[in-house]
Amino acid sequence: SQLLGSLRQENGVSPGGGACKMRWQLSEQLRCLELQGELRRELLQELAEFMRRRAEVELEYSRGLEKLAERFSSRGGRLGSSREHQSFRKEPSLLSPLHCWAVLLQHTRQQSRESAALSEVLAGPLAQRLSHIAEDVGRLVKKAKKTYQAYHMESVNAEAKLREAERQEEKRAGRSVPTTTAAATEAGPLRKSSLKKGGRLVEKRQAKFMEHKLKCTKARNEYLLSLASVNAAVSNYYLHDVLDLMDCCDTGFHLALGQVLRSYTAAESRTQASQVQGLGSLEEAVEALDPPGDKAKVLEVHATIFCPPLRFDYHPHDGDEVAEIRVEMELQDEIVPRAQNIQSRLDRQTIETEEVNKTLKATLQALLEVVASDDGDVLDSFQTSPSTESLKSTSSDPGSRQAGRRRGQQQETETFYLTVGRAGLVGGTRGGLRLFTW
Amino acid sequence: SQLLGSLRQENGVSPGGGACKMRWQLSEQLRCLELQGELRRELLQELAEFMRRRAEVELEYSRGLEKLAERFSSRGGRLGSSREHQSFRKEPSLLSPLHCWAVLLQHTRQQSRESAALSEVLAGPLAQRLSHIAEDVGRLVKKAKKTYQAYHMESVNAEAKLREAERQEEKRAGRSVPTTTAAATEAGPLRKSSLKKGGRLVEKRQAKFMEHKLKCTKARNEYLLSLASVNAAVSNYYLHDVLDLMDCCDTGFHLALGQVLRSYTAAESRTQASQVQGLGSLEEAVEALDPPGDKAKVLEVHATIFCPPLRFDYHPHDGDEVAEIRVEMELQDEIVPRAQNIQSRLDRQTIETEEVNKTLKATLQALLEVVASDDGDVLDSFQTSPSTESLKSTSSDPGSRQAGRRRGQQQETETFYLTVGRAGLVGGTRGGLRLFTW
Repeated sequence: SQLLGSLRQENGVSPGGGACKMRWQLSEQLRCLELQGELRRELLQELAEFMRRRAEVELEYSRGLEKLAERFSSRGGRLGSSREHQSFRKEPSLLSPLHCWAVLLQHTRQQSRESAALSEVLAGPLAQRLSHIAEDVGRLVKKAKKTYQAYHMESVNAEAKLREAERQEEKRAGRSVPTTTAAATEAGPLRKSSLKKGGRLVEKRQAKFMEHKLKCTKARNEYLLSLASVNAAVSNYYLHDVLDLMDCCDTGFHLALGQVLRSYTAAESRTQASQVQGLGSLEEAVEALDPPGDKAKVLEVHATIFCPPLRFDYHPHDGDEVAEIRVEMELQDEIVPRAQNIQSRLDRQTIETEEVNKTLKATLQALLEVVASDDGDVLDSFQTSPSTESLKSTSSDPGSRQAGRRRGQQQETETFYLTVGRAGLVGGTRGGLRLFTW
Repeated sequence: SQLLGSLRQENGVSPGGGACKMRWQLSEQLRCLELQGELRRELLQELAEFMRRRAEVELEYSRGLEKLAERFSSRGGRLGSSREHQSFRKEPSLLSPLHCWAVLLQHTRQQSRESAALSEVLAGPLAQRLSHIAEDVGRLVKKAKKTYQAYHMESVNAEAKLREAERQEEKRAGRSVPTTTAAATEAGPLRKSSLKKGGRLVEKRQAKFMEHKLKCTKARNEYLLSLASVNAAVSNYYLHDVLDLMDCCDTGFHLALGQVLRSYTAAESRTQASQVQGLGSLEEAVEALDPPGDKAKVLEVHATIFCPPLRFDYHPHDGDEVAEIRVEMELQDEIVPRAQNIQSRLDRQTIETEEVNKTLKATLQALLEVVASDDGDVLDSFQTSPSTESLKSTSSDPGSRQAGRRRGQQQETETFYLTVGRAGLVGGTRGGLRLFTW
């Protein structure tokens, strides 16, 4: 019987044990659905809180950038108080650098505006939307709970019906079987005493047996039908209804969450796109850095300072009508060698100047390369090793030693350039002066 | 003489006036160069200060984001203290939403790291670089000043030489002219008294005249040469040397400034690129939101709760070997109509279920559309009107009224969906139970 019982457990369940386990499952399912709803609401609330706090961080950032741009836009340069420096913003020699500066500030202001807009979207529509979804989830779970309770009632009713059917079958079968066996054992001896009486008795018992048998069959049929119906219903519930119930709870959750997150990425992407655009403007301004243009502007604005003066004129003594160099016969001996001397000095000077120019060009090239390489390295270290740690190292031992060496080299080259350059330049002018006057 | 003087001013300048104006120009040029250098240094210092302050803002932002990510990563959900909610992070029903959440936090952490790195670069290498350029500019201007002073000395010397030459010419011409006219007027009466004596006197005077004339020519030649030399030197100075001097002061300034600004845009671009990448990951996670997958995971994890129970088995009374529905002749009248009845109810139920399903599908579609449209509008308002003001309006009068209407509509649709759905669902199971047992 114990073996039979365990086999039974394997093949199927009795209404008592099965229904008991089902009731446990149903209540666990309810707990599970409710917990899921709660966790979902929790996740949504946490996301909403995240959005609000992210919005705060973004707003703070926006304000920081705005203050920064404001600080540097409002004053006319660092030493804005002194009279001379109020022209800072209009200094022609800084025309293209100042354009870069203006674009940089504008870019900063734009970043500030974008961050503020992002903040508004996060704290406003997105956080609100998440709260709405949380509400929706709560409501859906509440409604699903009602549906579940309907299921629960059905299961209790079905169990009762099944038990009743089982009880009925048990009762009928229990009554009909002993009756028929009794009828069979009684049939022998009774036949001997009175066939007629016995015939009536047999007929009566036969009728009673048939009646019981029919009732028994009906009860069994009812039991089997109930069993099939309950099994079909249970199977249907577990294979479809529970999943539908879960789907009901899910309705739109993933969709709505996805929409919110997509809005978030769209808002951030928009900010990024604007930043990229701003950086593009800044890059354009940097490309437009224009030393010759700035120099031309300086010369134009300070025309009185830089325009060449009128030529020094020949002012002959009253009555002297000669206004050109005269080579009298007597002066030839003196002037011709002097002219030859001047010519040869001029030739030497030309060669020297050419050489100086070559050296200058090479030195300038080297100097500019040092200037360019310095920043190239900053950029490289940033590009190849993005971590904060490795960036810090550029100001630590090996990096800074190297930078120091480079700066030393730069200043040496610069000094050489300016010394040779000055000699060359002054040589040019002084040479011109000397050529004739000494 | 006044007219002559003004004409002279137009055609050229006298050494006195011209040199005076030149000296003024040279000192103004020096002032101009020095001022330019100062303004450049000022601009560079201001840029450096901007970079440092921008770095502070960025660092603050980075810290805010880090704290934010930390706050939401560390605790196991909002109500982390309660035991039940510690499973929050592992809840299978939230598998794909939690993945989104994790990616969002990771993205935030990455943004924090990027901002920190940007901050490091701005405050470190870039600000330092700008200081170096400012130093370079200062040094270059100092050296250019020395060059200028050399020019100034040259100009003073040249002026002195010119004046000397002019003075000499004036002296010689002044002395030779009256001498020759005196010789001419004296020649007449002297010829009468003594030709020989007069001849010697004439010869002597002739020689003296020639000597004076030669000296005069030499002085004039010297004057003209000095004039040509000074004019050439001045022209050379104004047309080339001043520009070279300005170039010397400019050496590498635009280049270095451009490099710094390029480093800045590169650093920011890198941050942007990383952000875009992070947003890409977030978008992928959103795309991977997987309701069926999450449901399957729930069923898998809670297998004991959701696995269908074993079938309810037929437990016949001891000895009853029949285990199927028997239709005895006597039961046919009862069972056949009942079967027909069941069949027709089944047909009706099937039709009803199909209709309910159609309605459900349409309602679900409408519900999901409402859910989707809500966020679509948030996004639209963000996309088309980026200003903070217009974003605010989504939470103000017309926007919020519309949103309220939409939410009302959503809840109506939802209620209808769940009511019809519940009726349909429960109808399905209950119908199944009823079909056989009632």
